[in-house]
Amino acid sequence: MNIELINTGSELMLGRVLNTHQQWICAQFADLGYVVTRQIAVPDTGPAIQEALRDSLTRADLVVTTGGLGPTSDDLTREFIAQMFGKKLFVDQSALAHIEQFFAQRKRIAPEKTKVQALVPEGAIVLQNAFGTAPGLVMQLDSNPFRSGHKALIVMLPGPPRELRPMFRDQVAPLLGKYFPRESEFVCRTLKSTGLGESYVEEKLEVPLEALTKAGLELGYCARVGEVDVRIVTRGPGAVDLANKAEAEIRERLGSYIFGTGDDSLEKIIVQLLTDRKETVSFAESCTGGHIANRITNVSGASAIFMAGFVTYSNEAKQRLLGVNPTTLETCGAVSELTAREMAQGCRERNQTDYAIAVTGIAGPTGGSEDKPVGTVFIALASAKGTFAEHHVNRYERETFKFVVSQQALDLLRRKILATKQIAT
Amino acid sequence: MNIELINTGSELMLGRVLNTHQQWICAQFADLGYVVTRQIAVPDTGPAIQEALRDSLTRADLVVTTGGLGPTSDDLTREFIAQMFGKKLFVDQSALAHIEQFFAQRKRIAPEKTKVQALVPEGAIVLQNAFGTAPGLVMQLDSNPFRSGHKALIVMLPGPPRELRPMFRDQVAPLLGKYFPRESEFVCRTLKSTGLGESYVEEKLEVPLEALTKAGLELGYCARVGEVDVRIVTRGPGAVDLANKAEAEIRERLGSYIFGTGDDSLEKIIVQLLTDRKETVSFAESCTGGHIANRITNVSGASAIFMAGFVTYSNEAKQRLLGVNPTTLETCGAVSELTAREMAQGCRERNQTDYAIAVTGIAGPTGGSEDKPVGTVFIALASAKGTFAEHHVNRYERETFKFVVSQQALDLLRRKILATKQIAT
Repeated sequence: MNIELINTGSELMLGRVLNTHQQWICAQFADLGYVVTRQIAVPDTGPAIQEALRDSLTRADLVVTTGGLGPTSDDLTREFIAQMFGKKLFVDQSALAHIEQFFAQRKRIAPEKTKVQALVPEGAIVLQNAFGTAPGLVMQLDSNPFRSGHKALIVMLPGPPRELRPMFRDQVAPLLGKYFPRESEFVCRTLKSTGLGESYVEEKLEVPLEALTKAGLELGYCARVGEVDVRIVTRGPGAVDLANKAEAEIRERLGSYIFGTGDDSLEKIIVQLLTDRKETVSFAESCTGGHIANRITNVSGASAIFMAGFVTYSNEAKQRLLGVNPTTLETCGAVSELTAREMAQGCRERNQTDYAIAVTGIAGPTGGSEDKPVGTVFIALASAKGTFAEHHVNRYERETFKFVVSQQALDLLRRKILATKQIAT
Repeated sequence: MNIELINTGSELMLGRVLNTHQQWICAQFADLGYVVTRQIAVPDTGPAIQEALRDSLTRADLVVTTGGLGPTSDDLTREFIAQMFGKKLFVDQSALAHIEQFFAQRKRIAPEKTKVQALVPEGAIVLQNAFGTAPGLVMQLDSNPFRSGHKALIVMLPGPPRELRPMFRDQVAPLLGKYFPRESEFVCRTLKSTGLGESYVEEKLEVPLEALTKAGLELGYCARVGEVDVRIVTRGPGAVDLANKAEAEIRERLGSYIFGTGDDSLEKIIVQLLTDRKETVSFAESCTGGHIANRITNVSGASAIFMAGFVTYSNEAKQRLLGVNPTTLETCGAVSELTAREMAQGCRERNQTDYAIAVTGIAGPTGGSEDKPVGTVFIALASAKGTFAEHHVNRYERETFKFVVSQQALDLLRRKILATKQIAT
């Protein structure tokens, strides 16, 4: 089954707005067991919309369009699509009543312009808009003029996300099951790893998963900075079983490099782990400049586990706020293992937390030396069991460097928390 | 001129990631005076990529692809596009040397698999990748087999944004001018404002700019959270003059709401202002959790002006680290004007900086009350001239709330620095 998504809007083509419809609609389809085979964005002119739809209909069983159903002069989708199939538009009384009621509820008179939204191509199904005035439209083509011997369904949705999303969930999703019953099972899972490069992850999995891949497992890799996602897709009878086998094998091979699934982030995992254990953490950041604290406090509920953070950019602040020994700074330098250790210990003592993480490094672009090139970082973790330190060289531009260091620091913390658990049990 | 953008990646079709390339690349083209006429996303399979490219070439003079140049088995763009045009791949020695050097700098041996990235279709131009291993590729078709009588250019870019963006800016943009020279003058400028809503900005400018708009000025507005950009586009003879007039008028009308141009950010402006004045700042953050310090330290050179930051999430930390009076916390609460003032004063005294900014608020989703709903924030700024406080209610989800508060805090700082200057001169 081929599904295509056409997003209309000149603001998309000029890069003024991010196309959040694509991700949202594709994710909805995937969760329902369908895969969008192509997505297209075109300006909101009549010819561009018609050309894109004609192209899509040469391939697709289902085409979903977004945008262009509103009342203004650049809302052309309804009219130009109806025209393509020689369908007349006429006023749908229920849609018109909805528009009038919508304005009446807001104690305003419906502007004449808005009534164009009650126009519906003959034979189309009207999708009521619970959060706006433009209804969605569904056109069924018993014979697709651009792909002989095939039927097609065209679903037109309004552009505003707050209108489109409930309409898709409540009205389009149920239609899908009716028009395109799934022949088989479908499973899609994502395992998230950190600490290994993309090619290394693939090398580790290729041979062990060969048999499963031959049995129909689809494997995908998505490498972000400091993170590699492994995606498992299976279809047909036995899909769940195959996915389970694949997941078990991947977990076996990647072990603790896997930190989560789906939408997990390291910060979310850490807030969860510490909350479960009723433990706390504090941070002493030099080169990350508050980035680690910022990530942790993006998680709702962080206040239960995060007490305080220091951003000690200057040497003076490292001494005054964290008690780093001036001799250490003089003899080893601010970017050194010993400084990182003293920062972590000082941070933990002052904040009375179970864990303290400290980072000191050279974000660049300037400040490097032969011994300690740009990208050098020392990360230390202090806990009741002592202080542990790591050294990395991360050659990235400034903001990416900060993110990578925060991944390394949060992953070190995650591993230490998990290791402590293992000893306790 | 027709430009099409093809984004490849099964993760896009499954809705796992947001397609930020579309917005970024479309905006770059717009700034350079070109408009992307269609954008397409397809899964990263050979046939899907080939079919999409074939379709695009029936219409386009320039096709840009993203993704699929990496070292793993689902990186198929290079191979399948070369195959379409009967081009052999061979090892480009400079690309190979770059890959080996990339790993050597990181003290790792280049995995055998990564070397596939040095394969280049015969005749293609190699775009060096300053931030990764996969080079970009440019293929020139003197005769487009899918659109007779036309040439075409195919530009293949790597998927990771940190690699794609500098490659586009530094290598693709200059190529555009060479292959597709603009027929006439073209000026595109962006003025960045904060503190006013989009419709308010538009209202302020509509009438004063009417005559210039009639003379050919194209005005665009781009509203982001906490920021409205005004874009000026002019073309043809006299374009620079018309743009200058428009800029002067906009600056006159929006005054100090304009904080910068082009790619400026508030943090960049503040680092510049304080560096010029040899002044310093420190931060005491509660609800923003390090976000402000993180933004300031994203700017290279921040260490000259930023001494230290506190993230005081708990009441105890506000007392211990900033000297907030326990009675203030008891009687007014942690989220109050007086607490914000004491945080700022304590922060300034302890760090001996010229300015100190403090924020305390309720990021949500929980923690609000009738008096102080979710979104409430108090911002205080302490300087030699005393302490000034502001109160806002920002109803956004957690991360957006943090960003909006950081905009308000940094803008308050910017205005105070500028005001101090005016008095000093």
